[in-house]
Amino acid sequence: MKTDFKNGDYDTVGFSEDGRKLAFIDQTLLPGEVKFVETDDLGEMRQAIYLLKVRGAPAIGVAAAISIFVIANKLMENGFHEEESFMKALQMSAQVIAEARPTAVNLKWAVDRMMERVDACLGLGVDGIVDELKREAKLIRDQDVEVCRKLGENGLEVLESGQGILTHCNAGRLAAVRYGTATAPIYLGNERGYDFKVYADETRPLLQGARLTSFELSNAGIDVTLICDDMAASVMKQGKVQTVITGCDRVALNGDAANKIGTLGLAVMAKHFNIPFYIAAPASSIDFNTLSGNSIIIEERDGDEIKNMWYKKPMAPDDVRTYNPAFDVTDADLITGIITEYGIIRPPYRQTMRGLRDLIKAEQHKPMEARGHEI
Amino acid sequence: MKTDFKNGDYDTVGFSEDGRKLAFIDQTLLPGEVKFVETDDLGEMRQAIYLLKVRGAPAIGVAAAISIFVIANKLMENGFHEEESFMKALQMSAQVIAEARPTAVNLKWAVDRMMERVDACLGLGVDGIVDELKREAKLIRDQDVEVCRKLGENGLEVLESGQGILTHCNAGRLAAVRYGTATAPIYLGNERGYDFKVYADETRPLLQGARLTSFELSNAGIDVTLICDDMAASVMKQGKVQTVITGCDRVALNGDAANKIGTLGLAVMAKHFNIPFYIAAPASSIDFNTLSGNSIIIEERDGDEIKNMWYKKPMAPDDVRTYNPAFDVTDADLITGIITEYGIIRPPYRQTMRGLRDLIKAEQHKPMEARGHEI
Repeated sequence: MKTDFKNGDYDTVGFSEDGRKLAFIDQTLLPGEVKFVETDDLGEMRQAIYLLKVRGAPAIGVAAAISIFVIANKLMENGFHEEESFMKALQMSAQVIAEARPTAVNLKWAVDRMMERVDACLGLGVDGIVDELKREAKLIRDQDVEVCRKLGENGLEVLESGQGILTHCNAGRLAAVRYGTATAPIYLGNERGYDFKVYADETRPLLQGARLTSFELSNAGIDVTLICDDMAASVMKQGKVQTVITGCDRVALNGDAANKIGTLGLAVMAKHFNIPFYIAAPASSIDFNTLSGNSIIIEERDGDEIKNMWYKKPMAPDDVRTYNPAFDVTDADLITGIITEYGIIRPPYRQTMRGLRDLIKAEQHKPMEARGHEI
Repeated sequence: MKTDFKNGDYDTVGFSEDGRKLAFIDQTLLPGEVKFVETDDLGEMRQAIYLLKVRGAPAIGVAAAISIFVIANKLMENGFHEEESFMKALQMSAQVIAEARPTAVNLKWAVDRMMERVDACLGLGVDGIVDELKREAKLIRDQDVEVCRKLGENGLEVLESGQGILTHCNAGRLAAVRYGTATAPIYLGNERGYDFKVYADETRPLLQGARLTSFELSNAGIDVTLICDDMAASVMKQGKVQTVITGCDRVALNGDAANKIGTLGLAVMAKHFNIPFYIAAPASSIDFNTLSGNSIIIEERDGDEIKNMWYKKPMAPDDVRTYNPAFDVTDADLITGIITEYGIIRPPYRQTMRGLRDLIKAEQHKPMEARGHEI
C-alpha cells in the first residue's frame, strides 16, 4: 500500500507490503499525527473499524474485505488445511468483523461478498480458497479506487478551473482508498492543473471537515479554507462559491439524500444563492428500495458530543438538553444532480433513477470479469 | 443589585449593595462558575470590559456609565473637592474606560452621555456633580431594563404559547441588565405562563449560544434545547420551530441587519421553510446614517478561534487557512420584522424606518423626565 502521505501518494486502507496484513492510516490520531498501522490480529482489525480508525463507507468495506482475507490466510498458516474446520473458524471471525459497526451497510456488504466467494470456492482446498479471497479483496479495493475515479471524472464535467467549491464533512480520500467521493473531482482536477478554491465546513459536532477534509486537501497542495458551519451563507453571498458538493450516506429512489447533519441547510442556502448543489454518491449508496427520504431513520447521538467532546471544559451545563441528529435528509428538489460513477443523475429523479437501476441490473448479469469497473 | 442567580432573580450588571462599586457577573467563568464581582478599581473596571467579563452592547453601556460614577465618587472621597482638578482626573479615567473596546458603540455612547452630564452640572460643586452622575447612571440602567421589557412586550405579540423559537448567539439577559433583547419575549412570556420550546444554536466559533444562552434560559427554568449550528435546518424541517428571533449589532436604514455570523443562513432557511424571522433590536442599534448593509464593514478574526480555542488539541494543522468573519449581514427581504421598544418595524423598511426615526427625534426634544422609558 502506498504510504507517502507528505507527497499525497498514499492509500487510506490496503494491504501491507508483504501482502499478509491489513494496513491503514489511524484516523483517530489526525490531524496531529499521521500513523500507518499494520495488523493481522482479529481483535485489532475489529477495533480499527469500531473505534473509527478506519471510517467512511467505502474505506470500511475495503478494510473488512482485506480483514477476511488476512484472517483466512492466518488460519491456513496456523494449520487449518481442512476445508470444514477452516470454514467454521473463518465464519466466526467474519462475524466479529461484520458486527464491529452494526449500521455500516458497506461492512456487511463486503463481509457477505467475501464469504459468498468462500462458498463458491469450496472444493478448491484451503490454499485455493485463500488465493481466491486475496483476489476478491484486491478486486473490491481496485473497484473502490475506480468507482471514485470515474465519479470524479463525471463530477469534473460540471466544474471549471478557478471556481470555489464548498464541501461538508469528509467524503474525501480518508473515507475511501484514494480520491474519495465529493473530493474526487477536486483531486482529479488538481492533477490536471485546475485551480479550485475549496471551502471546508468544519462540520460540528464531530469536526470531520476540520480534522480530515481541510487536512487532507491542504496536504495535497489544494487551496482549502476552513470555515465554521455558520459561515457558509456568508461565503456564498460573497460569490466565493460556484458549486457545493457533498458526499452522502443513502439516496432514495425519489432523489432525497441522507447525509451528514448540515447538508440540508447547505442545500437550502445554495438554492437561495443560485449555486448548483451536487451530491456525490457511488451507485452502491443508492437504495432503490427506499421510496423517499421520509422513511430514512435518523440516528440521534449523545449530547456529550456537543457539550464536552474535544473541549478542555464543558461548554454547557450537564442539565442542558441537547438534540444531536447525526444526519439530515436533503429534499430531491434542492439537489441539482447526483454524481455517480455511471454519470450525473438529474431530475426528474423518479425517471432517471429507474434508468440507473436498469443499467446497474444489466451490469450485474455480466460475469465478474466483463463488468469492467462499473460495479 | 440582584444576585440570586439560581432563582433567576439577578442583574447582569449594576451597583454594589453599598451603591459605591460596579457589580457584575464574570461571564468568562460561565457556564462553569457563577461569580458576582464588585470593584471600584479603574484598572479592574476597564479589564472587565476589555476581557469580556461584561459583554453585549446594552450591558457594556450600563457598565461604563456606572464605572464613571464610581470613579467620580472615589475621586471625591479621596479629596478632590475642587471642580477643575476633579474634572481633569475624571476625564483621564473616563478615557481609560472609553478605550477598553474601541469598536463597542454603546461604550462610547454611555461615557459621552455621562461626561456631558458633568459639563451640564459644572458649578454645582463636586458633590452635586457626583449625585447627578449617580442619578444618570441609574437612569441609563433603568432605561436599559425598560427598553428590553418593552421590546419583549412587542415581541410577545407575534408569539403563542407552545411555539418553538430558535435563537442564535446570546442576545440574552447576559448581554443586558435584565430580559435581554432576543430573549426578552421569551422571559416575559415565561413570567406569564407561556410554554415556549427554545432551540439555541451553539454559535461557532465562540459558542455564546452554548455557554451563555442555553445556560441562562435553562437556569431560568425555560425549556431550551442546545443544537449545533448545522442542525438548524433539521429542526425547522421537522416543524419544531415556529419563529426565529435573533439579536443584532446594527440595522441599516433599508432594514439590512448585521449580526453574529450565522444569522444570514438562519434567515435563508427560515424563508425556505416559511418560518417568520425576526430581529430584536433596541432603537439604539438602528443606524439611520447607514443606507444599506453593503456599507457595513465585517470584522475578520483570528483563525485560532476556529482551530484551537476551547480544544484540548488543535482541530486542524497550523498551515490550514481559515476565514473567520465575526458577523454577517442579513438582507432586509429575509426579515419579517424588526422588534424594537417602539413596536415591530415591518417592510417596506425604507418607509417604516423613516417613521421610526421621526418618532425618536420627536421624543428626544422632550425634556428627559417627559420621555418616559422610550429612549
